Amino acid sequence: MVSKLGRLLIGKSLKTNELKSEKFNVFWGLPVLSSDAISSVAYAGEEILWVLIPVLGVMSYKYMFYSALCIVFLMILVTLSYRQTIDAYPQGGGSYIVAKDNLGTIPGLVAGASLTIGYVLTVAVSTSAGTAAIISAIPALLSYRVVITLLFIFIITIGNLRGLRESSKVFGTPTYLFMIIILTMIFFGIFKVKVLGYVPRPMYKIPTAVSDITIFLFLRAFSSGCTALTGIEAVSNGIPSFKEPSQKNAKIVLELLALVVLIIFGGVSYLATLYHAVPNPEVTVVAQIAYQVFGKNIMFYLVQITTAIILIMASNTAFAGLPLLLAFIAKDGFAPRQFSKRGKRLGYSNGIITLGLVSALLVIIFEGDTHYLMPLYAVGVFISFTLSQSGMLIRWIKLKNKGWRHKAFVNGIGALVTFATAVILGITKFLSGAWIVFILIPAIVCVMVRIKSHYCEVAKQLKLTVNERPKEVDFSIQKRYVIVPIDTLNKSFLKALNYARTISDNIIIFHVSVDDEATKKLLKKWHEYKVDIPIVVKKSPYRSILGPLVKFIESEEYAAGPKDSVTVVLAQLVVTKWWGNILHNQTALFIKTMLLRRRNIAIVTVPYIIFED
Amino acid sequence: MVSKLGRLLIGKSLKTNELKSEKFNVFWGLPVLSSDAISSVAYAGEEILWVLIPVLGVMSYKYMFYSALCIVFLMILVTLSYRQTIDAYPQGGGSYIVAKDNLGTIPGLVAGASLTIGYVLTVAVSTSAGTAAIISAIPALLSYRVVITLLFIFIITIGNLRGLRESSKVFGTPTYLFMIIILTMIFFGIFKVKVLGYVPRPMYKIPTAVSDITIFLFLRAFSSGCTALTGIEAVSNGIPSFKEPSQKNAKIVLELLALVVLIIFGGVSYLATLYHAVPNPEVTVVAQIAYQVFGKNIMFYLVQITTAIILIMASNTAFAGLPLLLAFIAKDGFAPRQFSKRGKRLGYSNGIITLGLVSALLVIIFEGDTHYLMPLYAVGVFISFTLSQSGMLIRWIKLKNKGWRHKAFVNGIGALVTFATAVILGITKFLSGAWIVFILIPAIVCVMVRIKSHYCEVAKQLKLTVNERPKEVDFSIQKRYVIVPIDTLNKSFLKALNYARTISDNIIIFHVSVDDEATKKLLKKWHEYKVDIPIVVKKSPYRSILGPLVKFIESEEYAAGPKDSVTVVLAQLVVTKWWGNILHNQTALFIKTMLLRRRNIAIVTVPYIIFED
Repeated sequence: MVSKLGRLLIGKSLKTNELKSEKFNVFWGLPVLSSDAISSVAYAGEEILWVLIPVLGVMSYKYMFYSALCIVFLMILVTLSYRQTIDAYPQGGGSYIVAKDNLGTIPGLVAGASLTIGYVLTVAVSTSAGTAAIISAIPALLSYRVVITLLFIFIITIGNLRGLRESSKVFGTPTYLFMIIILTMIFFGIFKVKVLGYVPRPMYKIPTAVSDITIFLFLRAFSSGCTALTGIEAVSNGIPSFKEPSQKNAKIVLELLALVVLIIFGGVSYLATLYHAVPNPEVTVVAQIAYQVFGKNIMFYLVQITTAIILIMASNTAFAGLPLLLAFIAKDGFAPRQFSKRGKRLGYSNGIITLGLVSALLVIIFEGDTHYLMPLYAVGVFISFTLSQSGMLIRWIKLKNKGWRHKAFVNGIGALVTFATAVILGITKFLSGAWIVFILIPAIVCVMVRIKSHYCEVAKQLKLTVNERPKEVDFSIQKRYVIVPIDTLNKSFLKALNYARTISDNIIIFHVSVDDEATKKLLKKWHEYKVDIPIVVKKSPYRSILGPLVKFIESEEYAAGPKDSVTVVLAQLVVTKWWGNILHNQTALFIKTMLLRRRNIAIVTVPYIIFED
Repeated sequence: MVSKLGRLLIGKSLKTNELKSEKFNVFWGLPVLSSDAISSVAYAGEEILWVLIPVLGVMSYKYMFYSALCIVFLMILVTLSYRQTIDAYPQGGGSYIVAKDNLGTIPGLVAGASLTIGYVLTVAVSTSAGTAAIISAIPALLSYRVVITLLFIFIITIGNLRGLRESSKVFGTPTYLFMIIILTMIFFGIFKVKVLGYVPRPMYKIPTAVSDITIFLFLRAFSSGCTALTGIEAVSNGIPSFKEPSQKNAKIVLELLALVVLIIFGGVSYLATLYHAVPNPEVTVVAQIAYQVFGKNIMFYLVQITTAIILIMASNTAFAGLPLLLAFIAKDGFAPRQFSKRGKRLGYSNGIITLGLVSALLVIIFEGDTHYLMPLYAVGVFISFTLSQSGMLIRWIKLKNKGWRHKAFVNGIGALVTFATAVILGITKFLSGAWIVFILIPAIVCVMVRIKSHYCEVAKQLKLTVNERPKEVDFSIQKRYVIVPIDTLNKSFLKALNYARTISDNIIIFHVSVDDEATKKLLKKWHEYKVDIPIVVKKSPYRSILGPLVKFIESEEYAAGPKDSVTVVLAQLVVTKWWGNILHNQTALFIKTMLLRRRNIAIVTVPYIIFED
């Protein structure tokens, strides 16, 4: 039943060689990898105004324009840098790979950890924000906030488990809808003022200025707007998800993405200046603009609804990015190997499921109110930007190929600016949560290093030396001891005993006595049975089965000599009903698990199956 | 580390023959088995007044006295009945055993299910009520309500896991404290009015009467007060927990319990009449009395605190009762067998832990506000009373031994009255929750019957027939097929292969190819190895390891003939660190679990241990 439900939700398994057809073309790659970046511009302008308006009053719009210019400049730099990265890393070059390659393992892991934090938070923050937008429209849903958010995460997780191509259609369409509606708003908004001569009537009063601009204030405004840049990473990390020629396709998508973000971010910022929108906790800047441009009609609601949808879709960028990133890290041995295995539908299922679960947990813990996770998220993204750009800078300096000075200059400026942004974000948001990032990143890096050393140790201990060859067939070793534990004399035990007799003629039946009555009964039955196999009974005053068995095995090992090994043949009852397992002492399973920790032992499990309707 | 913590909390293991010294004497048995009954009298009088006061006004006290008289009469009947039960069932005779013995299996199971519900709810309701009492004293703790309740459940669970004697000291002392303080209040309260001539000043105005007494109103008042009787069952169910002579001790405790309940319930009811206490959602009746008797001094607070403690301790009655009941049911095969096994400290650990977990879950689901679980609880208890008394009635009629008419009369009246009470409770509280009981009890009974039929089926299939004897040693069966799956050619595989060679010379190495590259590498290595064992490679387009392996085994089975079995030798990597298991595809474990469902297979697990610092 469970597997049927799974197939219904996720679809039938795909063959490994069907992998190619499941990749993005440019048209669908753009919305899937860009919804995070595009959705963040919806609030980036507002974030800038939140910083400026209370201090500068009406002068804010001037400096908002300057901030926006800087961010546009930064975005061009980042885009140029990532174009270079896509050229240099055709197999996919996120910050993790670039930093690892050029700066060393630890910086790479730091970038990987920052990105992981960023991706997980993207899902939690975006779906929560999307739910909040829906609830602003339908307040009756307020008490179901957490449930709705979890439902969104569930739907997106399932969509991604189904596979890339289908998820691109499911998740790409709303992104295009959002882009079209926002672009309509921008063009019509400018047209209304510049051509039709409409005089904007701001919904809220602009506060009077209390101070003049300072460098620090400007930098704060700039860094607040930098959320517009988050999500760009996804494209260069996702090159292998593109159809061939994947490198070229990725570059086109990156450029288109930058263009879309530029137009939407620039356009919305310009409209905010034109219509004198004032940030307010109840009505968003975008909503204020839409209200003035269209009036309170269908278009206003469409802007609100598509904004809500794109916020939820933004989390899909993380679902496209994180599983790939984890697969890279896992292939290098720094994350559990399971993250590098493709699932039934060829997506990295384990990464997708883990991302869904962890973000759902965050939503539950913060009860759907994840707004103050925002700073954590921005800091993480900019740390990875800085590492990626520094890595590229070092790369050009090392390689010194044609035009390296120009390239190094571009990346150097980028590294500097993103570093400055990260520092400013870290300082201004330190107390409101950014400190967690500075604990989490080292912690994650430590775990990754520990995992790697575990895998190395395992590989080292498993490696065959040159002269190690299989032993020749030697049935004399059959004189080894075979122990068959008995609890009750029944068919299951008899089957195990019969099996034991085919591998050795040196069998000991072993009984741990917990209940004197039961033991007496068993021994009586055994003697009536008249089989010439010795039975050893050990009393267990503390009612443990395992303790006396291990002690006995140790004494037998001692008798058999250190080189010889002991075989334990366990009769295992197998019930066909899943709930049947709850009804049986899983003693055999428990014994097996504990005995396996002993080097010189082999455990034979002989199943006895109980059929039930 | 986990096992160290466990030993610290629960104490060192006890030997089976230390069982005797862990039992109750009369002095500690009384408080442990009676805290539920005694705590319920603290609010039984109040419950009666809640029904009467709004209708009858000042006349209520008269009918409260009549109700109390009826309850006292009922209590005497129940006590007499249970004295007879203790005589008839020295091994412990709760409603389950009495009903099963005399009325048949299904009535027994119904009684068992009702009692189980009652016990679980006792824990949830009592600890929540205790927490509420504490919070009334310290309102700052309000937001930690659930956490505090869970902490209490945890402490009581640990206390019970430690063992009976110790838990009797931990939980018995506060019960005695409560009894002493309430008795002091009763005697001093009567003394103050009757001897010192104090004229009571009620804290709240008594409402004016709106109607006269009706039979139905009186019965509702009576049944509301019947909570005073819950918990009596625990004594007769707990006979085996008493020191020898356990039967006699249990009877003494039962009589003492009835006496204590009579005095406290009667006394508090009488005081309520004397001091004209009026039930009120903010100040309990007991608190109103204590305030008038002592003034707002240390004694008032002592009454409040010990009331809170006794409510929490009341849940301990359930911890003494339910694990024993479950052990009885499990021994009869109607509940998972694990409930009948004694734990490290000789308590029925599984029952104790299950009770702790389920009641904690209820507290979490109802967020510590479990007050409306009350009717469920009372209905369950009275259903089991009715079944128990009917059972005894049938018993006397069947046995017809000396004085059976008198005994049957006592039990008959008891059955009638408890049945009437159960019906009244069921009707008056049906919509406020009692309906759940009428769904839950049949559901639980169904599950119990299903469990029994499972155990019977297993036993039937495992039973040896007369002529079934072990086969003679026959090494020719060694021509059987042995399959050794390979993933990588390493030490772990080599160890498994070497083992396989000692049990058969008919070995097939089997490889499932998921990744063409890896397979090519493996085959090259294998051919360089030049060992004369065939290797079979099967491609798995859907990346499943198990599918091709099962198919291959089936074809080999076919070749080997139906009677022969196939052995699979699995190399299992064992890591010494607990977290190491997360880092490895548990393929061997998964294969083993799935293969065990096949009748003609034996699985040999050859562990290879990775040592790590």
